[in-house]
Amino acid sequence: MSLSQSILSGDIRAAARLMRNIDDNIPSSRSDLQELFPHTGKAFLIGITGPPGAGKSTLVDQVTAAYRKRGKRVGVVAIDPTSPFTGGAILGDRIRMNRHANDEGVFIRSLATRGHMGGLSRSTADVANVMDAMGMDVVIIETVGVGQDEVDIVRLAHTTLVVMVPGMGDDIQAIKAGILEIGDLFVVNKADRDGADRTARELSMMLEMNRYAEGDWRPPVLMTEAQRNVGIEELVETMESHHHWLVNSGEIHRLHEEKNRALFQTLLKERLFAEVNGRISDDGRLAEILDGMLTRKQDPYSSVERILAERLNA
Amino acid sequence: MSLSQSILSGDIRAAARLMRNIDDNIPSSRSDLQELFPHTGKAFLIGITGPPGAGKSTLVDQVTAAYRKRGKRVGVVAIDPTSPFTGGAILGDRIRMNRHANDEGVFIRSLATRGHMGGLSRSTADVANVMDAMGMDVVIIETVGVGQDEVDIVRLAHTTLVVMVPGMGDDIQAIKAGILEIGDLFVVNKADRDGADRTARELSMMLEMNRYAEGDWRPPVLMTEAQRNVGIEELVETMESHHHWLVNSGEIHRLHEEKNRALFQTLLKERLFAEVNGRISDDGRLAEILDGMLTRKQDPYSSVERILAERLNA
Repeated sequence: MSLSQSILSGDIRAAARLMRNIDDNIPSSRSDLQELFPHTGKAFLIGITGPPGAGKSTLVDQVTAAYRKRGKRVGVVAIDPTSPFTGGAILGDRIRMNRHANDEGVFIRSLATRGHMGGLSRSTADVANVMDAMGMDVVIIETVGVGQDEVDIVRLAHTTLVVMVPGMGDDIQAIKAGILEIGDLFVVNKADRDGADRTARELSMMLEMNRYAEGDWRPPVLMTEAQRNVGIEELVETMESHHHWLVNSGEIHRLHEEKNRALFQTLLKERLFAEVNGRISDDGRLAEILDGMLTRKQDPYSSVERILAERLNA
Repeated sequence: MSLSQSILSGDIRAAARLMRNIDDNIPSSRSDLQELFPHTGKAFLIGITGPPGAGKSTLVDQVTAAYRKRGKRVGVVAIDPTSPFTGGAILGDRIRMNRHANDEGVFIRSLATRGHMGGLSRSTADVANVMDAMGMDVVIIETVGVGQDEVDIVRLAHTTLVVMVPGMGDDIQAIKAGILEIGDLFVVNKADRDGADRTARELSMMLEMNRYAEGDWRPPVLMTEAQRNVGIEELVETMESHHHWLVNSGEIHRLHEEKNRALFQTLLKERLFAEVNGRISDDGRLAEILDGMLTRKQDPYSSVERILAERLNA
């Protein structure tokens, strides 16, 4: 029985194995993902992002528990920064999720930010698809909101939650428009801290400056204290409302088209490169080009155009 | 006269224009870069990275001044995070560099982290090449040390400087091995702060656990107070020592080979994708594939393989 067949028959270990294969970029994972693909598209994908220290992991933990109470199976893809400067702390947080360790309705997978052939957002999409095919009703993708990679990851989700904390008060004017564009919901976590109201108010004001058409989703700003499980039910309700809006407005089709296009194009880019790079490595063309660059006699720009002319069909 | 010819004849505005063209991914920038390529390879490339708040911008400013005193022309490529969460602050720092604004021997270019077709590290490499061709003796690439993108950027440099600050003391055990691998030099900045000695000592201890062969470069740990211009001369001396070591040991050839390979492969990946994606968009194949994905009748993995079979020469 193939890994994908085992996964479809409910084998959790097989799912974990395929995810490792995806990580290690093992070619057989492609055919497994291929077989799983027709069984995907059912899960509700939630993206959660925000600055380090905003309490995202705790929030994810509580949201997971809330969905479990509703009888939903929950998958979590946690992107763990392996950056030299932020490493460590997040790993500690992850341990908290252990309260779900013996719950078969929860499946947690951490992905390191380093070393993904084809990119992190591609690996994340693949892992989310495996969880979807496993029958997870909700798949939460958690990522630290820094850098283009993370923004791309958030775009995999149906509903994106941006987590803020009080005390960013004075800086909030400096916050770029980008944050307003990616969030479907905003949460001011650690709402017991000084300045929480002010942060929420300023965020609301900035959001109100956007122009909304009739029937558009207007991103709400919520307050939570994830540590004490305050505001979580309302948060889950609001995420569900957004999901319903997506479905009822038909917006979900546009979203799926966009996600499909991104997945296909990422695969295309990766496979084209692997194939052509492999061939020019084998036949010595690459070595020749690199020699030419070293002596500065051949520039890489025209070399690439020559390779294109040689390798692509007219 | 082409932009590249103007640049080679010393026209600063032409250089700025080409950098904007690179940013906007204007096709003509390719032929300009192509013409400049034979004139590159002379500059000493320094990468400076570290966590937000480590004082990197001030350090870059002081290092720039120190190189100017030595009569060197200095280019600075500053990667400005446009992340919603870190935006703003860095822009303020950049203003400090204004003291070099009327100095023709200094050329500063900020790159936003968002929106680079072909990737940020590709754009950074292109801009660094323009500065190299302009005759800048030293090109400093400054980036916030978070994420894979930033690590890739640092790999463009000959000498990589990692900036730390005191007070990371307790966390230092948690710092991943990655940081030890990327730094050729470590600086504990804000050395007047409590715990600076301890941070430097712990860093040294961790570095000593690496195994070095005879003749290997052993990354030193320096202390600076960039704000008060303390330790900058020694820092510049040490960077110069590293550069000499690269040249004398022959290591610089391996480094250039690696950089060339990375540049060529990034270009190859980008151009292959643009070409094939353009063709299947034009002839309707892409639309067909996306339709198949939407109904889950066609999976993207086998679709990509079919496109490869159709478009690549045997």
